[in-house]
Amino acid sequence: MKTRPPMPEKPATPLLDRIASPADMRGLSVAEMRQLADELRAETIYSVSKTGGHLGAGLGVVELTVAIHAIFDTPHDKLIWDVSHQCYPHKILTGRRDRMTSIRQKDGLSGFTKRTESPYDPFGAAHSSTSISAALGFAVARDLGGSPENGIGDCIAVIGDGAMSAGMAFEAMNNAGHLNKRLIVVLNDNEMSIAPPVGALSTYLSRLYAGEPFQEFKAAAKGAVRLLPPPFQEGARRAKEMLKGMTVGGTMFEELGFSYVGPIDGHDMDQLAQVLRTVKARATGPVLIHAITRKGKGYRPAEERDDKGHATAKFDVPTGKQHKAPSNAPSYTSVFGKTLTKLGETDDKIVAVTAAMPDGTGVDIFGARFPSRTFDVGIAEQHGVTFSAGLAAGGMRPFCAIYSTFLQRGYDQVVHDVAIQRLPVRFMIDRAGLVGADGATHAGSFDIAYLANLPDFVIMAPSDEAELVNMIETARGIDDRPSAVRYPRGAGVGTEMPETPTALEIGKGRIVAEGKRVAFLSLGPRLTEVHKAAEMLTAKGITPTIADARFAKPLDEDMILKLAREHEVLITIEEGAIGGFGSHVAQLLAENGVFDSGLKFRSMVLPDTFIDQATPDQMYEVAGLTADDMVAKVMSALDISTLGSQRA
Amino acid sequence: MKTRPPMPEKPATPLLDRIASPADMRGLSVAEMRQLADELRAETIYSVSKTGGHLGAGLGVVELTVAIHAIFDTPHDKLIWDVSHQCYPHKILTGRRDRMTSIRQKDGLSGFTKRTESPYDPFGAAHSSTSISAALGFAVARDLGGSPENGIGDCIAVIGDGAMSAGMAFEAMNNAGHLNKRLIVVLNDNEMSIAPPVGALSTYLSRLYAGEPFQEFKAAAKGAVRLLPPPFQEGARRAKEMLKGMTVGGTMFEELGFSYVGPIDGHDMDQLAQVLRTVKARATGPVLIHAITRKGKGYRPAEERDDKGHATAKFDVPTGKQHKAPSNAPSYTSVFGKTLTKLGETDDKIVAVTAAMPDGTGVDIFGARFPSRTFDVGIAEQHGVTFSAGLAAGGMRPFCAIYSTFLQRGYDQVVHDVAIQRLPVRFMIDRAGLVGADGATHAGSFDIAYLANLPDFVIMAPSDEAELVNMIETARGIDDRPSAVRYPRGAGVGTEMPETPTALEIGKGRIVAEGKRVAFLSLGPRLTEVHKAAEMLTAKGITPTIADARFAKPLDEDMILKLAREHEVLITIEEGAIGGFGSHVAQLLAENGVFDSGLKFRSMVLPDTFIDQATPDQMYEVAGLTADDMVAKVMSALDISTLGSQRA
Repeated sequence: MKTRPPMPEKPATPLLDRIASPADMRGLSVAEMRQLADELRAETIYSVSKTGGHLGAGLGVVELTVAIHAIFDTPHDKLIWDVSHQCYPHKILTGRRDRMTSIRQKDGLSGFTKRTESPYDPFGAAHSSTSISAALGFAVARDLGGSPENGIGDCIAVIGDGAMSAGMAFEAMNNAGHLNKRLIVVLNDNEMSIAPPVGALSTYLSRLYAGEPFQEFKAAAKGAVRLLPPPFQEGARRAKEMLKGMTVGGTMFEELGFSYVGPIDGHDMDQLAQVLRTVKARATGPVLIHAITRKGKGYRPAEERDDKGHATAKFDVPTGKQHKAPSNAPSYTSVFGKTLTKLGETDDKIVAVTAAMPDGTGVDIFGARFPSRTFDVGIAEQHGVTFSAGLAAGGMRPFCAIYSTFLQRGYDQVVHDVAIQRLPVRFMIDRAGLVGADGATHAGSFDIAYLANLPDFVIMAPSDEAELVNMIETARGIDDRPSAVRYPRGAGVGTEMPETPTALEIGKGRIVAEGKRVAFLSLGPRLTEVHKAAEMLTAKGITPTIADARFAKPLDEDMILKLAREHEVLITIEEGAIGGFGSHVAQLLAENGVFDSGLKFRSMVLPDTFIDQATPDQMYEVAGLTADDMVAKVMSALDISTLGSQRA
Repeated sequence: MKTRPPMPEKPATPLLDRIASPADMRGLSVAEMRQLADELRAETIYSVSKTGGHLGAGLGVVELTVAIHAIFDTPHDKLIWDVSHQCYPHKILTGRRDRMTSIRQKDGLSGFTKRTESPYDPFGAAHSSTSISAALGFAVARDLGGSPENGIGDCIAVIGDGAMSAGMAFEAMNNAGHLNKRLIVVLNDNEMSIAPPVGALSTYLSRLYAGEPFQEFKAAAKGAVRLLPPPFQEGARRAKEMLKGMTVGGTMFEELGFSYVGPIDGHDMDQLAQVLRTVKARATGPVLIHAITRKGKGYRPAEERDDKGHATAKFDVPTGKQHKAPSNAPSYTSVFGKTLTKLGETDDKIVAVTAAMPDGTGVDIFGARFPSRTFDVGIAEQHGVTFSAGLAAGGMRPFCAIYSTFLQRGYDQVVHDVAIQRLPVRFMIDRAGLVGADGATHAGSFDIAYLANLPDFVIMAPSDEAELVNMIETARGIDDRPSAVRYPRGAGVGTEMPETPTALEIGKGRIVAEGKRVAFLSLGPRLTEVHKAAEMLTAKGITPTIADARFAKPLDEDMILKLAREHEVLITIEEGAIGGFGSHVAQLLAENGVFDSGLKFRSMVLPDTFIDQATPDQMYEVAGLTADDMVAKVMSALDISTLGSQRA
């Protein structure tokens, strides 16, 4: 490869420097919009190189971002970014440029849009496919006079083709077509969600522009013709002539009641400006603008990566080389992927299901070895769960790998199709607990609570990556009921791995250390902090017992009652919200009359707040689940002896 | 009206009487299938007249049921009924005819398909839109050799047009088109879900057969042509000639990768037999058969009702007159509908959202008065919740009325779009707790648990219908965060209603009766049973304190700690699973050191089992939540004094 001239450390952005807010963009010519987009792209690359974060998606919508803000009257007009990891250029333009260095960090900007951060973020997001529903809500509120003090103008949702494949987006399109309110949906079609796209809709979208190189898209397609005024004005007539040349149709969208415009080249500012101005002037009902873009556009190292620079560490701008801290231990994700692959060699009933996250879940590792037994259903958790239930009913051993926060999307299916029918779907719940830079929207806080009250479920949480290996094998062997393993984002603790995965006895915990007076009953990887707390307490003369519960359900009743009987203080610890493990332990203790004669019982859970982005360690500090917090809890419990005399 | 000859009490069914199982149907001629369908329809009407239950949906699929079982090799071929309230004729044909008198009753047949009930029910249902996902799971399992012992043949999902509008069905179609497995989806298009259909898909389906009277459908449409063999056989050639006459297309389905056949007349046995045989012989990938049917078909009293005889009490066959027990008190549903309507007169920001259940939720009452402020989004809970969030962000006061069990479908949206953004959506959660004849799939068991751990949520449960009125007004006034009111199916207690709805103080409970030693802390309508228990205990010399918590969140901490301090026994009672109100109370008590010195605390919740259909009272007996159970719990607690000495 030839040496390239190094990109200047800080790009020159003379036009961008004059834009304090989108109001300053309203008079720009198309040529200026194009220049602004170029500067904004360079600024985005520069900014993310210093902070890390989502890059590829933002680069793909630089022109769209400029064009929408220049042509529409944000924030009076409501611009809603679906998922919103593509919002970095939007944040730069909307008064947050000087805070971009803080993105995804504690007390900094969110990596997503957020209502509390800016009036230019009318509806936050992070999970996909919500934008059309939200925009429709705004549109209806507008027409009913919802916010007379501020008013609501146009409602614009920008949604990717991956997000469009989720059922929720279909529900919203279906309802929008029915209500027939003025509403603008920009389908940002980059043929990528995070992973390569799957599903018939993706094939359909591909057909819409098959064989049509971008440069041949003159302006827009037949759908736009309907939007033009009968008494043609000069510009409109020119536009119509161009439009008539296009015959590609968006039948599916039109059948749902939308006017379809496209496909257009989402990087061609002329096309964007013309189409947006036409739609703005003429739309009456819902309009879908189909824009073709390229993820990572304009930054070769991103364009050349398989994931198009989806999320990145800090990097060197000229080369794209990422500065990643080396990890000493494998990630839980990779341990899952490798273990399942190993088990798949001898168990041909194992199948893996992911909802558009093959890399994130480690299902890609299994998929590389067993492609015919691997199913990426797209962004479709509802279907993914019930599809897994069907596989289980058909005699397979499905491992359905979905992040804790996204499994909320399939909750009813977990209850109705899996649990009530007692079907042996194995849920592999990655990103359980607090996840760091993605913040509150991605926290896996609720899964223990929402699964542990489902009859017959087996729920495990490993305290380290070796435990995970054995729990996967345990789940494999559970053929008569549903099971789940929940494990965190990131690296394990570096423990020695078992030669052969070995099933655990169901519903049995283990005593890790024997002590006196105080017992810690830990579920999951907080065990590392529990060990630290135990050391600190030992230094104070209190040597606690440490138990690893392993199972949130069924509980190891004998072990727990024995712990309660033999200790003055019993503290449960989990990386989850109230209603989960600790609540089930409390119920067990109450039903057995343990509280009748007194027990200093405490349950340490995530607090009753949504915790903003930071590192996971910082978030657990905020949550009060560190070794220091555990020590404080013990000391406080040992001091308290009279009813309600003070708060713990 | 002329007198009609009375329909014979028990219809003559000579052919049906010879069918012990679908195996006996395999040799039937089309004429015999037609006769069997007529007899099956009469039998279904007769049977439901004796038991009550779902009628209209079953009558609409009598011919489909006969044709599928006659032509396909069930149960080797997997027939999956979506929702499955249309399964009564299917149950009659599949060995359960003699047990139809027990349907929807305790220890009887379920009103839905159920895996544990019959091998002809390969996948149970009750919520909508799951059948395609499940059938695809079976199809993939078949091709991977999932059940070698039994084998899996064709996989057939029968789904209504209402159910097809749910995002989950779209996700499944999208994935099925991608996987291209042999799979048969019968779209049972009766232009009805439970309510009249809404949404653009419905309009689209209507266009597909606009202007084509049923009798003109000769066989099927162009999609079927592709399925025909190149070397035409005699029957196939005739079929092709008929097919070519049809030009109506199912473009949307074809774009999703399905071969489309239809529309056909789903009551014309000739068409059904021909199409099903052709599809069976020739399908390679996924096929959608679009059958037009009429809900309530063949029974005029059902056809003439607005809901086409969706669900009915026992009735008189000749007249269709239902035998309903009169109720002395209004239903919680109607109290909600009327109260919201009253509030809507003076508050023009109130909007109501329902997901295809305007009647079931009482939203129809508001909708009759305020049609422009009422939104039926179709079977689309995910969209419905986020649409409500958008309405709230746009300055409206949305009341999103969804049954407890169906709100599970929108759980992620509740977390991600409503709770994290602290948007003031008011969830009106009908059918909370155990619901009776619909059984476990419809139980509203989990909502307190899955909502109460969401930060900032306000969660209320009225103990009677007067409380409900005031809680609706309370929710109306909560503009800074989400709120929910959960209330049961059925009639209130007949209490006097407030003249004017009055907001309650948020997070404050009330002491209903002062007593000693024992305190009942009740959330929701179990309060009636608590009063009974208190009377029984008073007779034994123990007069308990009774508190109505009103709020599951925020808790009335002062009241609860005072109750704990002043009583020997504290028992929480709720119509919900563990993880909810009782767990939050336990956490409060633990954090305040109340257990340190001893408290006989018990939390009475739904048990860790799914409870089959029965009357609600019978179900609460099974659940152990009656007055007798409360008394037993108190007596047991008062006897227990040593740690873990016996189970309560």
